[in-house]
Amino acid sequence: MSRKEFRTLADPAEVRETIGSLALGGGTEMVDLENAHGHVLAERVDAEIDVPGFDRASMDGYAVRARDTFGADEAEPVVLDLSGTVHAGEEPDVTVGPGTCVEISTGAVMPPGADAVVIVEQTDETDGPDGETQIRIRSSVTPGDSVMVAGADIAAGARALGPGTPITPREIGVLSALGLNEVPVLASPTVGIVSTGDELVRPGDSLASQRGQIHDVNSYTIAAGVEAAGGEPVVYPHAGDDFEELERLLREAADECDLVVSSGSTSASAVDVIYQVIEDRGELLLHGVSVKPGKPMLVGRIDQSDGGQSAYIGLPGYPVSALTVFRTFVAPALREATGRPEPATATVDGEMAVESRSEEGRLRLLSVGVLEDGSGNRLVYPVDKGSGATMSLAEADGVVAVDADTDYLSAGESVTVQLFSPDVRPPSLLGIGEDDPALNELLDQLSAVRYLAPGSREGLRRLGDGLPDFVVVAGPVDRDLDAVSLGRWHREWGLLVPEGNPKDVEELAGLVDRDLRFANRETNSGLRTSLSIELAALAADREVSRHSLVEAIDGFEATVKAVESPARRLIEGRADVGLGLRTTADKLDLGFVSLGDQPIELLLNPDRTDKSAVDQLQSRLADLPDHCSSLSGYRFPGE
Amino acid sequence: MSRKEFRTLADPAEVRETIGSLALGGGTEMVDLENAHGHVLAERVDAEIDVPGFDRASMDGYAVRARDTFGADEAEPVVLDLSGTVHAGEEPDVTVGPGTCVEISTGAVMPPGADAVVIVEQTDETDGPDGETQIRIRSSVTPGDSVMVAGADIAAGARALGPGTPITPREIGVLSALGLNEVPVLASPTVGIVSTGDELVRPGDSLASQRGQIHDVNSYTIAAGVEAAGGEPVVYPHAGDDFEELERLLREAADECDLVVSSGSTSASAVDVIYQVIEDRGELLLHGVSVKPGKPMLVGRIDQSDGGQSAYIGLPGYPVSALTVFRTFVAPALREATGRPEPATATVDGEMAVESRSEEGRLRLLSVGVLEDGSGNRLVYPVDKGSGATMSLAEADGVVAVDADTDYLSAGESVTVQLFSPDVRPPSLLGIGEDDPALNELLDQLSAVRYLAPGSREGLRRLGDGLPDFVVVAGPVDRDLDAVSLGRWHREWGLLVPEGNPKDVEELAGLVDRDLRFANRETNSGLRTSLSIELAALAADREVSRHSLVEAIDGFEATVKAVESPARRLIEGRADVGLGLRTTADKLDLGFVSLGDQPIELLLNPDRTDKSAVDQLQSRLADLPDHCSSLSGYRFPGE
Repeated sequence: MSRKEFRTLADPAEVRETIGSLALGGGTEMVDLENAHGHVLAERVDAEIDVPGFDRASMDGYAVRARDTFGADEAEPVVLDLSGTVHAGEEPDVTVGPGTCVEISTGAVMPPGADAVVIVEQTDETDGPDGETQIRIRSSVTPGDSVMVAGADIAAGARALGPGTPITPREIGVLSALGLNEVPVLASPTVGIVSTGDELVRPGDSLASQRGQIHDVNSYTIAAGVEAAGGEPVVYPHAGDDFEELERLLREAADECDLVVSSGSTSASAVDVIYQVIEDRGELLLHGVSVKPGKPMLVGRIDQSDGGQSAYIGLPGYPVSALTVFRTFVAPALREATGRPEPATATVDGEMAVESRSEEGRLRLLSVGVLEDGSGNRLVYPVDKGSGATMSLAEADGVVAVDADTDYLSAGESVTVQLFSPDVRPPSLLGIGEDDPALNELLDQLSAVRYLAPGSREGLRRLGDGLPDFVVVAGPVDRDLDAVSLGRWHREWGLLVPEGNPKDVEELAGLVDRDLRFANRETNSGLRTSLSIELAALAADREVSRHSLVEAIDGFEATVKAVESPARRLIEGRADVGLGLRTTADKLDLGFVSLGDQPIELLLNPDRTDKSAVDQLQSRLADLPDHCSSLSGYRFPGE
Repeated sequence: MSRKEFRTLADPAEVRETIGSLALGGGTEMVDLENAHGHVLAERVDAEIDVPGFDRASMDGYAVRARDTFGADEAEPVVLDLSGTVHAGEEPDVTVGPGTCVEISTGAVMPPGADAVVIVEQTDETDGPDGETQIRIRSSVTPGDSVMVAGADIAAGARALGPGTPITPREIGVLSALGLNEVPVLASPTVGIVSTGDELVRPGDSLASQRGQIHDVNSYTIAAGVEAAGGEPVVYPHAGDDFEELERLLREAADECDLVVSSGSTSASAVDVIYQVIEDRGELLLHGVSVKPGKPMLVGRIDQSDGGQSAYIGLPGYPVSALTVFRTFVAPALREATGRPEPATATVDGEMAVESRSEEGRLRLLSVGVLEDGSGNRLVYPVDKGSGATMSLAEADGVVAVDADTDYLSAGESVTVQLFSPDVRPPSLLGIGEDDPALNELLDQLSAVRYLAPGSREGLRRLGDGLPDFVVVAGPVDRDLDAVSLGRWHREWGLLVPEGNPKDVEELAGLVDRDLRFANRETNSGLRTSLSIELAALAADREVSRHSLVEAIDGFEATVKAVESPARRLIEGRADVGLGLRTTADKLDLGFVSLGDQPIELLLNPDRTDKSAVDQLQSRLADLPDHCSSLSGYRFPGE
């Protein structure tokens, strides 16, 4: 099949309009009062009953005929005969005649004849001449005093709540008072979610990585996004890129849902297949959108078996792109359909922390992180790890939409960030630097911290740009650095070998001189820096170039990413020796050849000393040794 | 039983501390990934697998040995033999040897031997000397180009998400990528809800009003509040005020829940009974709180059958008080227990629109409404309809906590409003005035408008205070009023009589001269004003005082609240004649004696002309006749 070219790209306004023209709304449905919270009223609710339904005592006291209390005061109380009692929930069995009163509880029905209540605090009980109980009334009342007449709260026939009212706890209260146990609400559109790609496997199932399988990220991510926007997600099994299979699944979803959202596999041919299914079995309204990411986005309709059509939207395959496009175009349409206005928390304003360049000609949906600086300004920084990186989901907070005719956002420029969902809360602290198990324990003690671990050197570079609140550096630190040291500890590092050290690796020289496969860390890593220093020392000893030693190590340049990655290479049998930590060796039951202790330093951005979260960081840092008792090879100050 | 006196009232800080000391948290529970949205991670999640799990092509193109492309450019392309194809989701069945390449799709496994991908745009297909397919490479690549190595996105062993992370769609994405199908989250505390009071009836069941029954408002209101704060509500059947019944129910709830929340009936004796149950079958930590409303609030523990204890909080019985105390003291503790920080939307700042006086000595939780004025300031106004009024739930937006030592909030003073729940959205327009069926149709066309209908006179009085955006006045309007008329229509008013007019009421004189029971409206109502004008005219005709005519009407002073209320009195047989509208008579199949047409005018506060919602009001007003086709007796401009 030839690859589809999208020659005319629709602009974002056209996309919004086209999606707006799809009937996503599901009409009205009745829900039980106990499930109504979070829905939106579809119709006006008028009171069908009076609330209260009867003239009701609003205080504890005595029901009287107001005229009988005329002139009563402390000096000259009026004395009335007590002729009975009415409690809340009882039908009065007495009438209040002239000269009599009835004891009454708050909420009770006013007995016939009475038109006011004297509150208990203005009365005394006393004995009458024949031993009967009488009540001394020490204050006069007028008709209606301490009585709520029938309908005074809500009168039957009155407009109580309007259509479009979001149902929060307080509306539940009003609906309860009106005696309603079901409520007409805007029906939530059902949204069928179909991920496509032969390589997809559901989370929880194991991967055959040799066959290129990966977990299906989009299905549940988009489902959660649908839920947050008021829709009802239905996740379908993922589909391969085969026409028949895709057609069957999309039509099944179309029959059962108001909207079908697919996300393309990362293979371009899948887009072509979906394109063809929608053209053959529905109606393609838009294809090719002038948005980055999102160019191959599709908008259309799919025929249903009963002759109707469901709406259809095709998202890009890469998770960040899929969520970005969903958030920008689909979520607003779902909110509109369900009567839920975009919450105030869904967007935040800020200023660019660094510049960002865009390609002109297409709306760019820039993934960004959000951070407060020390003066309460909100900084916005691009997060671009390449479209295939799912981790940028956790490292970014939302999207800045950069106009097609803007090719450059300067540092300090004001931007609006559309958070990935209204419940996203940007972190209170951002740290960048070395990957370290003790640091991880520290991070666990902090709320709302984001830590990126590209390595010590990258941390220092970003500190130079002024972005992070703190950096964590392993190995030697330039003492002239403009940063505040918050704390320092040491970790034992060296060579990881399989359990029992079968190849008898004893020192660094062995790695150079023998035929061993090595698993190294990247140049940004502080471990790599310490290794380079040791190699330089060995080269000096031997009076050879450091380069010649490096050349002799098999795998020196093929680096892996995280602190445990070399160890995992060893376990997989893909390396004989790895660069790593004592604590990793102990955790994963590996052998270890120590090359010494390495300092780790936590450095604060000097502009962020006033951030309140820094206090939390400092106080948790003081407790760090307590949390690291299960880690080996660490030394903390004072130990 | 003697009434309990609370002599030592706890202050709010003590209440917060005591509630904080109750163990509300439910520990950790596993939830399926598809249900994890909205929960909070209980533990750190480290990556157990590399993402991707294999070296992966990140673009469509050709997998090559980078060294084979050395020096290739447009002028001097390198030609490689095509030795196979790898799609996403397939295990490569070819090796890339020197001088060869393999066609590869985005996401596919890199075949052995290859270390880079040349993107398809930099290549051409061509025929080799023996007709075999060859690929012309027009650009050189270096190892790793367009390849994402195993673990480059997330490396096995790396810290992915920290404990306490709220699970939003983006975290669902990360968890999916890590292949997790269940997630450890902070367990939602189960909250048992028990409403007490013999007079309570569940919404949906009909009321025996003669016995003083009312609908149970608190159970579902508090349940929705619990849900909004991250708890899991369990609504129990309501309990009477009887010791045995209350004890049985509270202990059942305690056995099944982490926290039991009761709300007292409006009868004071019920509080005494609950108090005794908690003292006898648990532990009373606090009773009598220096808060208004909320004085009889209880905090304690209830013994469980297995020897443990559940937490217990007793709320006041009146719905607004119950929700106010819940919102101020209980919701924050639930949020804390479930790791959900108070969302930014839960409070708003504003300034008092009018002054408000408090009793000194107790924290006052003042119910307030919130409104924007024309300049973007947020105005806060007290809503005090008496504690028994459930309708103030819909008329207020939240609570201002006024310190015990503050007895006076002046107009213009800055205050913070705790919204009843984070999903409450204050209205964009506030109107006050006459109750009118055509107006109700207009209100239905507007989003986020609040309209209070205490009558025309009250509307004008509040306009004088500068509060509402608009008022609606029936009957004559003072032409010197400082207001902008947005529109005017007329409604036919008169006397409502039973169907067929059995008593042959023909004109107002009949009401005065004959022995008929009348159902009147309050003095604030414009209908009442028009009636008074007609009575004054009749008195002038007869040369008697208006007062003598009024005296002759049975029920003239016993007024009812809403536009349909007199009609409903008629239908109940409690009146022979009612004051009302032609449209009400037609709607409820009553007879009608017309007394003329009455103007209705919609008047805008001159300070609010710039509010954007006013435009919406104006444009909907223009369409009003279209929406009122089912109403009789109306005349609109131009008709």
